[in-house]
Amino acid sequence: MRLIRFSTAASVCASLLLAASPARALTPADDKAITAAARATLPELVEAVKLPNVLRTSTADMRRNADWVEAAFKRHGFTARQLADGETPMVYAAGPAPAKGVKTVLFYAHMDGQAVNPAEWDQPGPFVPTLKRKRADGTWETLPIEDLTKGVPDPEWRLFARSAADDKAPILMLMAAMDALKAAGKLPAIQIKILIDSHEEGGPPTLKDVVDQNAALLKADAVVMLDGPMHESNKPTLVFGHRGGGGFSLTVWGARSELHSGHYGNYAANPAFSLAQLLATMKDADGRVLIPGFYEGVALDPAAKAARAAVPDDEVALRKRLGIKTNEKVGDSYQGALAYPSLNITSMKAGSPEASRTIIPAFAIATFDARTVPGTPAPRQIALVRKWVEDQGYHLTKGPPTDAERAAYAKLATLEGGEGQGQALQTPLDAAVGGWARRAFVGAWQAEPVRIPIMGGSVPTRPLVDGVKAPILLVPLVNNDNNQHAANENLRIGNYFIGVKSLYALFTQPL
Amino acid sequence: MRLIRFSTAASVCASLLLAASPARALTPADDKAITAAARATLPELVEAVKLPNVLRTSTADMRRNADWVEAAFKRHGFTARQLADGETPMVYAAGPAPAKGVKTVLFYAHMDGQAVNPAEWDQPGPFVPTLKRKRADGTWETLPIEDLTKGVPDPEWRLFARSAADDKAPILMLMAAMDALKAAGKLPAIQIKILIDSHEEGGPPTLKDVVDQNAALLKADAVVMLDGPMHESNKPTLVFGHRGGGGFSLTVWGARSELHSGHYGNYAANPAFSLAQLLATMKDADGRVLIPGFYEGVALDPAAKAARAAVPDDEVALRKRLGIKTNEKVGDSYQGALAYPSLNITSMKAGSPEASRTIIPAFAIATFDARTVPGTPAPRQIALVRKWVEDQGYHLTKGPPTDAERAAYAKLATLEGGEGQGQALQTPLDAAVGGWARRAFVGAWQAEPVRIPIMGGSVPTRPLVDGVKAPILLVPLVNNDNNQHAANENLRIGNYFIGVKSLYALFTQPL
Repeated sequence: MRLIRFSTAASVCASLLLAASPARALTPADDKAITAAARATLPELVEAVKLPNVLRTSTADMRRNADWVEAAFKRHGFTARQLADGETPMVYAAGPAPAKGVKTVLFYAHMDGQAVNPAEWDQPGPFVPTLKRKRADGTWETLPIEDLTKGVPDPEWRLFARSAADDKAPILMLMAAMDALKAAGKLPAIQIKILIDSHEEGGPPTLKDVVDQNAALLKADAVVMLDGPMHESNKPTLVFGHRGGGGFSLTVWGARSELHSGHYGNYAANPAFSLAQLLATMKDADGRVLIPGFYEGVALDPAAKAARAAVPDDEVALRKRLGIKTNEKVGDSYQGALAYPSLNITSMKAGSPEASRTIIPAFAIATFDARTVPGTPAPRQIALVRKWVEDQGYHLTKGPPTDAERAAYAKLATLEGGEGQGQALQTPLDAAVGGWARRAFVGAWQAEPVRIPIMGGSVPTRPLVDGVKAPILLVPLVNNDNNQHAANENLRIGNYFIGVKSLYALFTQPL
Repeated sequence: MRLIRFSTAASVCASLLLAASPARALTPADDKAITAAARATLPELVEAVKLPNVLRTSTADMRRNADWVEAAFKRHGFTARQLADGETPMVYAAGPAPAKGVKTVLFYAHMDGQAVNPAEWDQPGPFVPTLKRKRADGTWETLPIEDLTKGVPDPEWRLFARSAADDKAPILMLMAAMDALKAAGKLPAIQIKILIDSHEEGGPPTLKDVVDQNAALLKADAVVMLDGPMHESNKPTLVFGHRGGGGFSLTVWGARSELHSGHYGNYAANPAFSLAQLLATMKDADGRVLIPGFYEGVALDPAAKAARAAVPDDEVALRKRLGIKTNEKVGDSYQGALAYPSLNITSMKAGSPEASRTIIPAFAIATFDARTVPGTPAPRQIALVRKWVEDQGYHLTKGPPTDAERAAYAKLATLEGGEGQGQALQTPLDAAVGGWARRAFVGAWQAEPVRIPIMGGSVPTRPLVDGVKAPILLVPLVNNDNNQHAANENLRIGNYFIGVKSLYALFTQPL
């Protein structure tokens, strides 16, 4: 497979389509079974999102979710059980035994949801599932929830509720896909294992412990994460990696206390100016980091480059949506930008912006997040920034400088943080899991899926990487505009059907 | 007098000491009268600071202050009346008629005080005058307030109360000096006029109206402002000018809203970095402003330079107190720094420093104050900054950019403010009022006063400059460490005696 890494985009396509088992085109009978099963399970999705699922608010709520999910998997032909995880168990499920010798795929999703502020929701509550359709003027009209399950729902309708998209819909899609398989009289072509997390959105991260304690049970040849939104074109999407990240803060110290700007302006250096001058050395006018070594280790894989070029981004529309005329020049495109580590200021502060006092601030602080890619781990990136700050003549202190430090050094700063950072993931584009999913999707839609080599955000995949020791692929199934983590989270109904079909295709494609 | 401007420091001294009437040395009889009058008026100072005087809190309080001050001047041999000023009159007083043909000096002080937060005061309240002495360990011991008026008070004792220093003490010093004059059997050598402001620390500025409406009454050959602290050496101090100032804000715009730093880091420019890069162009590493023309018009007067060199600043001690190893290199010294306009960042903000969210901020803002000197008016300085920002490629908008502006310009910023700024003052060092005060002080102390050409802060002298049309001299009389405007404001008792003697010397020195 190694040759593919250095081949052209066209030959990559050819190679992948020819490798292993060919793409299995779905038949009209498959489609009929999929549509029927999806439609039949919509009432259960509505029931599922009625269950409050904010871990920090109530562990009892989370246990009710686990009970519901376990029972639902059993209803749909899976074996299922809860995996002990303190007060809030995770759920494990497995599909029916397939033919001997087939490969095993572990599907991951989560049943917990982000915290909610009911006042921000344009409906009776975040756990009152609400069906809406968009009017021509862009406003939303509420429909009776029963409309979802009688007749044929419009794919553009939306089901509004916390976790409708993130991440309960994929759990129900798994069940519907299994129902469709049964209706079509087929056995899965893979051994299906499923892990439903209860701690993805908050609370102490327990995934590592659960994975370690159930290593044999969760053993698999590949892991598929069913989380996150599809490409904004809403075309079937495969994501091969994500960036990691590390946060830290940089404080530049001025005089011991705030000073009267009249009495000391032009005499005591202003730490806001000093911080600005220090920050200005870190990037060029096009956003490229100037710190030596910052981009070292970035893998410029021709296959990834070709895949990025094939992503159907509309950057003109993207820039218009963001309200920017030009973009930074770190990569050669939006996808290219995400292949590089970033150095981002998340906040900056000096003095009291609310009070208009004529003072010289005593210090100025910037907080950062440094997104990473494989080859540029966060501790190294932050160490490079630290060295750069020192190279600009700063003496770094552990906190506010002592009198002795003030007497000894003209330029004083503190750099803090950088521990416990998420690691980047990059599954090779030629990994078997990618080819398998691609064949499945080509078979389902007779079109290439969008393949994103690396997405910009970060996902806590590390426990699965380390625990299951199998390649990981992210297969997002929900609409991009789902208001993930915010008020008015919603699932586009059409995406529920896309998701069931996607999983049906994966279930029936040999790995 | 013009030649003096180009003479050396030594010849300046000689010229001034020889010019006009010679310094009149005070006699032991004068000193005795001064000390007795100062001591005798201390109980009245205690009474004066019992009167709450925060204009914004109560105009009735301010009327009580005006009544008290008017009556007190009358008790001490002045004619006095209130000058209508809406609900809170100012007080005008005049000394006894002197010999014919003498010059007139208008003394200015104010009876209103800064707002108070009683919880921050280490005493029963800001209007409960409290006598304290410092223990060897630096803590304060409270003494019975009666100790101030029985026996001889220790000059190091402090009277704590709002306005004890800023600015009621000078009002009482004027009265005591007049008492001393009477006790010594002398007539003033000048016509003494006094204006006691009620709006110096807050409220709408009304001084201009009062001055304009009482132009004939306030006519004078010189104005002496009795406000602010003496040089930190506590040596008698004459201040010939002050800086002006102008505030403005500079906002750099990023994308239309905050962005997920994972999805858009390396693509959408971060306005905090952009602002930092813009700010970094404005100053060099030593704090000198790089904007062309910023220092144009600064008068580099050799006489002022010589005077600055003679100010007994201890810059090593100053830097130690401020906690800085080195100072900026705008001027050749602390006093030299104040002779130049400044460009100071009073605050800076981007994102939400309190929440640690991984976002790209939508904008970054810095607020500034630009202190000015004569020859560098604030509107011009701010216009230079505006042009500089434009020269760096920024398109300036009136507020958040419109979609059209976002589509048309890559770099967007907004510069706001700069109206209604205080103007700088520079009374020539060879002005008659300066020579007169200097002779008086040399006569009183047999030593040169500290002469500060220009102080760093700003004072609203403009109404007096425009209205009275006479040279202005600032004669601060209170201790430098008086906690002006803050909690635990205090007057060093020794300074009360210094102040009475200073005014006695001025009263008896012909202008």
